[in-house]
Amino acid sequence: MSLIFNLEKIVGSNQVLANPENTKFNSDWTGEFNFRPKAVVRPRNVGQISKILELANNRKIPIVPSGGNTGLSGGTYADNAIILSLELMNDIREIRAVSKIAIVESGVILSDLRNAVNHQDLSFPLNFGAKSSAMIGGILSTNAGGSNVIKYGNARDLCLGIEAVLPNGDIMNLMSELHKDNSGYNLKQLLIGAEGTLGIITAAVLKLHPKQKKHATALAAVESIDAAISLLNRLQAVTGGAVEAFEYMPDTYLIKYLSLFPEARAPFSQNYKFNILIELASSIESFTNQKPNSKVSLTDCLENVLQDCFSKEMVLDAVISQNERQRQDMWKMREAAAEVIISKKPLLNNDIAVPLDKIGSFLEVVSRRLAELDNGAESVCVAHLGDGNIHYTIWPQSLDTAVHYKTIEMVEEVVISLGGSFSAEHGIGKSKLGSMERLKNPVALKVMKTIKSSLDPNNILNPFKVIP
Amino acid sequence: MSLIFNLEKIVGSNQVLANPENTKFNSDWTGEFNFRPKAVVRPRNVGQISKILELANNRKIPIVPSGGNTGLSGGTYADNAIILSLELMNDIREIRAVSKIAIVESGVILSDLRNAVNHQDLSFPLNFGAKSSAMIGGILSTNAGGSNVIKYGNARDLCLGIEAVLPNGDIMNLMSELHKDNSGYNLKQLLIGAEGTLGIITAAVLKLHPKQKKHATALAAVESIDAAISLLNRLQAVTGGAVEAFEYMPDTYLIKYLSLFPEARAPFSQNYKFNILIELASSIESFTNQKPNSKVSLTDCLENVLQDCFSKEMVLDAVISQNERQRQDMWKMREAAAEVIISKKPLLNNDIAVPLDKIGSFLEVVSRRLAELDNGAESVCVAHLGDGNIHYTIWPQSLDTAVHYKTIEMVEEVVISLGGSFSAEHGIGKSKLGSMERLKNPVALKVMKTIKSSLDPNNILNPFKVIP
Repeated sequence: MSLIFNLEKIVGSNQVLANPENTKFNSDWTGEFNFRPKAVVRPRNVGQISKILELANNRKIPIVPSGGNTGLSGGTYADNAIILSLELMNDIREIRAVSKIAIVESGVILSDLRNAVNHQDLSFPLNFGAKSSAMIGGILSTNAGGSNVIKYGNARDLCLGIEAVLPNGDIMNLMSELHKDNSGYNLKQLLIGAEGTLGIITAAVLKLHPKQKKHATALAAVESIDAAISLLNRLQAVTGGAVEAFEYMPDTYLIKYLSLFPEARAPFSQNYKFNILIELASSIESFTNQKPNSKVSLTDCLENVLQDCFSKEMVLDAVISQNERQRQDMWKMREAAAEVIISKKPLLNNDIAVPLDKIGSFLEVVSRRLAELDNGAESVCVAHLGDGNIHYTIWPQSLDTAVHYKTIEMVEEVVISLGGSFSAEHGIGKSKLGSMERLKNPVALKVMKTIKSSLDPNNILNPFKVIP
Repeated sequence: MSLIFNLEKIVGSNQVLANPENTKFNSDWTGEFNFRPKAVVRPRNVGQISKILELANNRKIPIVPSGGNTGLSGGTYADNAIILSLELMNDIREIRAVSKIAIVESGVILSDLRNAVNHQDLSFPLNFGAKSSAMIGGILSTNAGGSNVIKYGNARDLCLGIEAVLPNGDIMNLMSELHKDNSGYNLKQLLIGAEGTLGIITAAVLKLHPKQKKHATALAAVESIDAAISLLNRLQAVTGGAVEAFEYMPDTYLIKYLSLFPEARAPFSQNYKFNILIELASSIESFTNQKPNSKVSLTDCLENVLQDCFSKEMVLDAVISQNERQRQDMWKMREAAAEVIISKKPLLNNDIAVPLDKIGSFLEVVSRRLAELDNGAESVCVAHLGDGNIHYTIWPQSLDTAVHYKTIEMVEEVVISLGGSFSAEHGIGKSKLGSMERLKNPVALKVMKTIKSSLDPNNILNPFKVIP
């Protein structure tokens, strides 16, 4: 019997799309990958997913799971595969305020969950640009990060339990609501970040936090990256860890931003090389300063630390947002990153991480070596400085792809020499397979291959992704 | 050539003990398991461990890794095996204050690390009774928990990177210092909590926190478990998550404690059924209350919340420690748990976890069903209430082991019916294999077996532990 007929038998004919062309299922978000799937199937429950995988496994047909399709590494490339879209599985099953958990299906959109828990005075703190499209299943499968990782961790740190379907159709129920659960290997953490190559995550138990009641936001120009890290550590100590975002934007980025958005205003009367967007947040009303009897709001607290660092010449200039509009303007500057980056082509993208105390060296060395390799190339970066994650983009001068390739290798070489990672938060997907082959610890790579082939012997689940 | 000769060739003759008898290597900490290893070998570096595993793998001889030997589930049982002791690998290689990490070998004792980082105004917050003996390798291999999990997570949440030796001798270097690192499957989290059955953890990069400067400690009698959870959520909201410990002790526990330690004083003038030891900690000096202009210290803050809950009849009585001695006395009461529990035999121990909003039901149902099953049996428990982990001990009346077995099954049945786990923080080792067989999700168990046999085909690494 035909594949389409069998899929229709499982999910109903309305939920199967045969040989789609020119649909949202024919390319990834970046547009870099275009493909033609055999079919798109949209199951409504885990039982249907189990049957689809059993069918695909018996017939050895690749299955590519798809959520909001906002990935940046080609993880949903699906030529000749069945795309299994999770979009109909979007039920927020429970929000339990007392034990601070949410139980959701994997097609729930991040911003929908954030809004729903917000109404109950709680927060699901994961936050990044694609939040209005990205779905929980994809977020967990790629271990998404974003700008609040410094305070709350990555997606994997916000997940207590998962349900997943394995390549043979087996349903693995690990929907723990527990903060301690030492009953065997942590298969949840193995599947989180595996980009759908070991199983399809169908539901999850997520950890919630109290809603943050106060914010304090500032833009500060600092003397150096090391001064920025000192400022960060000072703020953490004085506020008891209230830093929610600590985002770096160099002058090159701000100049480009201002030229692309002429209505935007420069934050300072002069250009500074190192600019940091700082946001503090707290579920309590105010703090007191270390000096006795000097009560301060979160904003006062931020101002005091900035003042003090200014007197020590670590901070060169700073503006503190006085209202929500000013705060939004500061964030707009940071959140325009995707538009700034794609404003010029060709571009070479690097989503990398280095240890906090080596970020300064990284930026210096890469800039010097870039000038040697491709004189005239421009670079622009934004960084989640608080967690060490740098989005480093290069606009090459040379049009020679061999030079481009060498440039990326050079960046990765510097990253590795400083103990960093060639993939921080976007994952491997299809686009970083080469780096994975060259740079991943070979023993770890061998173990990954062993696990993959033992759990998915027919290589049907998102094949030729993650593992080179 | 003989095994001993070969081991001596690798580590030197001083570091091999053949056929030990009556040594610390012949039983586990509980004394429940006694065994006779073929040899004990004490390597000094990862290269030696690699050679030992290669040798053992070629000869198919079991290897049991051993750290501080403080486990409570028989994980170091080693009859006819080689015990690989990590005790000589105890170097704290680096403490980096700026990026808040420590790089250590796995034989480092927890309290040694805690003291070392403390001198640099930092904290490694993992804390439990066995801290003066437990070693980092064992702590990671069992994903140890303790009383600060509510604020800082389990061992796995405090680890950025590991180095491990695989059964075939391969050295897997995953010594990441990063907060974001999405480069393939999370093999670190797979090995953490695997109790030495997949690889031997030889070194780790650990996350440090700022040192807590202020503590506020109290003992509160509450109206019910649900009132306790409300109190916890109130404290978290008002202090911005400053609760470091939230420990439950029922009247039955306190009565037993006072009878065993006659010099100790009862905390209240009457007995209360539900007693909570609360500790707040913060790296900042003081908070302000939600009412404007009312600055409060951490202790005032605790007092205000307790006062308010008292007026609502959720809290029935409370004492706040006024000095370090009183604080220590409160903790002594809680930390005597091991002695209280072993004061009467036989005993049936349960290290279980249930979701926070179901702990009240758990205690009620188990108590009722215990009376039906073994009328006259006593129970006593202490709980890390803030993270849902209950150490539930039963002193049976019946001497019939069939009744004991049924009693444990009954407790586990109630746990599972409430969505809990039969193993919260002590792991599976050898003593919980039966529960694992009966209660673990069968698909997860199958996946665990597949992973174990693909990575350790000769079953040499801590065999017959964790997986039934």
